[in-house]
Amino acid sequence: MNIVMNTLKSFNSNYVTAKRVNNTNLIMSNPIQADTFERTNVSFSGKHDNVSELQQARVHYEPKLPKVFRGDGINNFEVKQGKKTESVSDQKEIQRLFPETYGQPIIEFEEMSSKKAAKVGKNEHSDNKPLKVGIILSGGQAPGGHNVITGLYDSLKKINPKSELYGFLGGPSGLVDDKYIKFDDKKIDSIRNTGGFDVIGSGRTKLETEEQFEKVLDNCKKHGIEAITIVGGDDSNTNAAVLAEWLKAKGENINVVGCPKTIDGDLKNEQIETSFGFDTATKTYSEIVGNIEKDAASAKKYWHFVKVMGRSASHVALEVALQTHPNVTLLSEEVEQKKLSLNDVVDYTAGVVAKRAEEGKNYGVAVIPEGLIEFFPEMKTLIGNLNDLAADENLQDVMQNGSAKDKISVTRQNLGEDDLKVFDSLPEAIQGQLLMDRDSHGNVQVSKIDTEKLIIQMVDKKLKDMKAEGKYNGKFSSQAHFVGYEGRCAFPSNFDADYCYSLGTTAAALINSGKTGYLASVKNLDKKADKWTAGGTPITMLFNMEKRSGKNKPVIKKALVEMDSPAFKELQKNRKDWAVNDEYLIPGAIQYFGPSDVCDKTTKTLQLEHK
Amino acid sequence: MNIVMNTLKSFNSNYVTAKRVNNTNLIMSNPIQADTFERTNVSFSGKHDNVSELQQARVHYEPKLPKVFRGDGINNFEVKQGKKTESVSDQKEIQRLFPETYGQPIIEFEEMSSKKAAKVGKNEHSDNKPLKVGIILSGGQAPGGHNVITGLYDSLKKINPKSELYGFLGGPSGLVDDKYIKFDDKKIDSIRNTGGFDVIGSGRTKLETEEQFEKVLDNCKKHGIEAITIVGGDDSNTNAAVLAEWLKAKGENINVVGCPKTIDGDLKNEQIETSFGFDTATKTYSEIVGNIEKDAASAKKYWHFVKVMGRSASHVALEVALQTHPNVTLLSEEVEQKKLSLNDVVDYTAGVVAKRAEEGKNYGVAVIPEGLIEFFPEMKTLIGNLNDLAADENLQDVMQNGSAKDKISVTRQNLGEDDLKVFDSLPEAIQGQLLMDRDSHGNVQVSKIDTEKLIIQMVDKKLKDMKAEGKYNGKFSSQAHFVGYEGRCAFPSNFDADYCYSLGTTAAALINSGKTGYLASVKNLDKKADKWTAGGTPITMLFNMEKRSGKNKPVIKKALVEMDSPAFKELQKNRKDWAVNDEYLIPGAIQYFGPSDVCDKTTKTLQLEHK
Repeated sequence: MNIVMNTLKSFNSNYVTAKRVNNTNLIMSNPIQADTFERTNVSFSGKHDNVSELQQARVHYEPKLPKVFRGDGINNFEVKQGKKTESVSDQKEIQRLFPETYGQPIIEFEEMSSKKAAKVGKNEHSDNKPLKVGIILSGGQAPGGHNVITGLYDSLKKINPKSELYGFLGGPSGLVDDKYIKFDDKKIDSIRNTGGFDVIGSGRTKLETEEQFEKVLDNCKKHGIEAITIVGGDDSNTNAAVLAEWLKAKGENINVVGCPKTIDGDLKNEQIETSFGFDTATKTYSEIVGNIEKDAASAKKYWHFVKVMGRSASHVALEVALQTHPNVTLLSEEVEQKKLSLNDVVDYTAGVVAKRAEEGKNYGVAVIPEGLIEFFPEMKTLIGNLNDLAADENLQDVMQNGSAKDKISVTRQNLGEDDLKVFDSLPEAIQGQLLMDRDSHGNVQVSKIDTEKLIIQMVDKKLKDMKAEGKYNGKFSSQAHFVGYEGRCAFPSNFDADYCYSLGTTAAALINSGKTGYLASVKNLDKKADKWTAGGTPITMLFNMEKRSGKNKPVIKKALVEMDSPAFKELQKNRKDWAVNDEYLIPGAIQYFGPSDVCDKTTKTLQLEHK
Repeated sequence: MNIVMNTLKSFNSNYVTAKRVNNTNLIMSNPIQADTFERTNVSFSGKHDNVSELQQARVHYEPKLPKVFRGDGINNFEVKQGKKTESVSDQKEIQRLFPETYGQPIIEFEEMSSKKAAKVGKNEHSDNKPLKVGIILSGGQAPGGHNVITGLYDSLKKINPKSELYGFLGGPSGLVDDKYIKFDDKKIDSIRNTGGFDVIGSGRTKLETEEQFEKVLDNCKKHGIEAITIVGGDDSNTNAAVLAEWLKAKGENINVVGCPKTIDGDLKNEQIETSFGFDTATKTYSEIVGNIEKDAASAKKYWHFVKVMGRSASHVALEVALQTHPNVTLLSEEVEQKKLSLNDVVDYTAGVVAKRAEEGKNYGVAVIPEGLIEFFPEMKTLIGNLNDLAADENLQDVMQNGSAKDKISVTRQNLGEDDLKVFDSLPEAIQGQLLMDRDSHGNVQVSKIDTEKLIIQMVDKKLKDMKAEGKYNGKFSSQAHFVGYEGRCAFPSNFDADYCYSLGTTAAALINSGKTGYLASVKNLDKKADKWTAGGTPITMLFNMEKRSGKNKPVIKKALVEMDSPAFKELQKNRKDWAVNDEYLIPGAIQYFGPSDVCDKTTKTLQLEHK
């Protein structure tokens, strides 16, 4: 039996409980016949043919937890409190805004010493009474959201089988409007290790008005809910802190804890090593980019320009580059910090195309972040002034109802000299996109601008000029791609499945320790899970003051790609080599089984940051 | 040990040779440290960080073979010959064109009976002398191409270690121009179970002229090459048959055998159950479509229109639909056979959108084949006439150098009434695409027309009309996707890795049996590999006469989606249900390890065809 366990460990031991080993073939090879097992029979939502083989197998995956929470850890931990904390900046202002929750200490959960355990006998922070908790999924989808729910649910039930978990529907608005479901074993078992937010849905409503808070309070009191877990990014967790402060100021004993979510990877700091979903999303995008690289090197025919998600931060583009070694990688933060113009970037890209052409390589792959265009200084100015034009009452008729052609000519008449030069340098299609599709605030919807096609067209033009000057004699055929939606709801990687389940468990520990205004934090994520530590980070600690629609507001500081970060330095170190030589790395599809090196490793960014 | 083997079988036994079991942890968990193993140390092309963890692990995968070729089977099989064969149609004409190779029997390879083995002692079809063979990859990439090479190489070496395999570079032109590499163990070990055609590249040169054949003959004689394996689709294998006939007519003892390749899945018939690459490509596309479905159902915000590869046949779109259950599936063959107009399809799609909106579902997923637009009768006519206009000398100046606007107006003046009506019904962007990007023959490049966006715009327009009539009151926001390139070079699925390695082995058996003008065929592919059978199909048997650029030519009959095929019927049976209800199936990423049900099953199309 020992041999079996060792052998299976190398295939990722988490599938193998003692019970399962006795029945491996039955469970692993024929999940459909495995109805005899407690989970399986409820995991098919009735219809076998509506659950894929992979999903049926993933139901059996048991996420890895930090040591402190293994076994009955959730009922036997100690709380170590650090010193009083400060916000990253604007301390006075933020303390003034958060008198109740500002300065709380960082918390670490530790295994209870046997001595103490002998004394107190059980978790000193809990009388193991049943808990009523609500959970919300907020903002964009990220792989692993369902595992935060299952981790929280399992922990609440371990604390007391009578505990209840409410899932509020459609994001924060569900909490305000009291739309919810109550989770039970069957529901929970059907979503274990699955992607998507579909079990309760998500939403982008902001919790910030007095009226909303009153409703939240009423609904919590009505159900007897003692704590709310908000799963979201920087904005949602900012709201979590504001709600926590409001409730505490009211003297209400309803605690609010957050979990760090976003595939963009821009919610991180010394306490939060990474946000969940970033690992799975970047692996999914890297699979696609790597396969495209292999195709490019095989067909030797096309230059592929791949735009990847990431509006305000380029962590995704950078991570994908580190996983796949494309010939060209453009990053928004670099463009901004080095004050590069669109033409600088076009010249650089055309230069790489020409250099490769000299070696007979008329193919390649470029990775571009979704938000790039906003970061070119001249484009930022132009877009700002276009938004003003759109708001100009005298022009609204044309700008709203005119033909593309009319809009363009009216725009040209009303732009200043510099803006006009930039505007005229853009392809007609892009000029059109800049004048159409305004959002509810009348702003250009940058995500609808085909930046990858813009770069392609301008590089093509540049290469024609170079050809005329005899500086280029290759062939430039291109393909444009946008990858994003296929990564937000993938089955969470083993890392995200483990991390999210651990975050849900940590949230339960924070709640059961009576903490509020905290973000669940799990650390040492570059190590194996048994080395992970769990604790809580006071959200106010992550705050600074920023202008938001004209007003100064306390918000969690977004983490952008820094030019001196290990990940960016790694790109810099290899950029020239990757540009000219085919150093393509092909990661392939995410693996959930198989060798630990293949299916348990986390992102290059995280590994490099902890080197 | 027995337990170990059984346990591991459920994790796909092929990773586990006796040797490996003793070292499972070392090999499986830490491939990088596994340099002690014969393959591994040559599989990293020197630089570890240039080979992904998955590729390092895949090197150890040992493809499954049909029983007849296991062990020393390649030197111990019997050849069972069937009756004389006929081409699918135009028998007289094709017999006239292929006097030497027409009517050859179907061949099956069988294990040599022990009685016979005792008598002849070894393969009666071989004196085990060294063989010199050349191989060509022809046409578009398909996952598994490298395994055809490794299967052929390993077999040739088993027949005689002095055998040699030449890889001709860049497709058929490499054979004509004598550009090649000689494979050795190091090279072969570095490409085992990898995607891409990059090891020798591919090309689309047609082998059809006397001059080409003479060159091929000279080069083969120069190197002493006795046989050529052509890996390609219907066109390439048609050329293989023509070359085989030519060489035999010349009395040259150089044999030609083909292997059926194409992700499009349109090279199949009673003898060829499927072409390689179709399994991996459709699984890769289904991963993406499934993830997008999950995102749509989570965000409840967008209708996603996903165009998938497949110019002349829709097998890919159909298979992806069977694997993911999208709300709308459009198929080119259905459009053609039911004579549906673009408007019919738009009305149907808008109808599904409206029906779902009634239930509050303003989201969904539609799957569209790449070639769809050509199959609408009215579009076919329009495109034909536009090609004529483009060729009209009086208009060429405008049509080549004019602005998009000028081209459109000139076109409108010169189109007939019906064409004009169709043309005017199209969005301006599509009108432009129809007039730009002509190929070398002056034809519209249909693949460059954004059919998915065309459908989106027309559905949007239709919905606005319905709204005006009070027949629709939902919200329609859309996202367009094109998936294709990410699937042609993915790591071959276990099925394609096994199938391709078996095809290469079968090609070796055909060559060593002195056969020419045959296509390697492996059958019973819906069963486990030990039930697979191997043999050869005379290529002329697959021929019919078709008009190609004005001339009647013998070509392999393309397999299109038939309305009475099991796969199409399965779609029909579920279409209404899938349209309205969210029956989304999320297959997730291709798995190479793990439970057999998850990683060894082949396509739904193949499973249904053999039910």
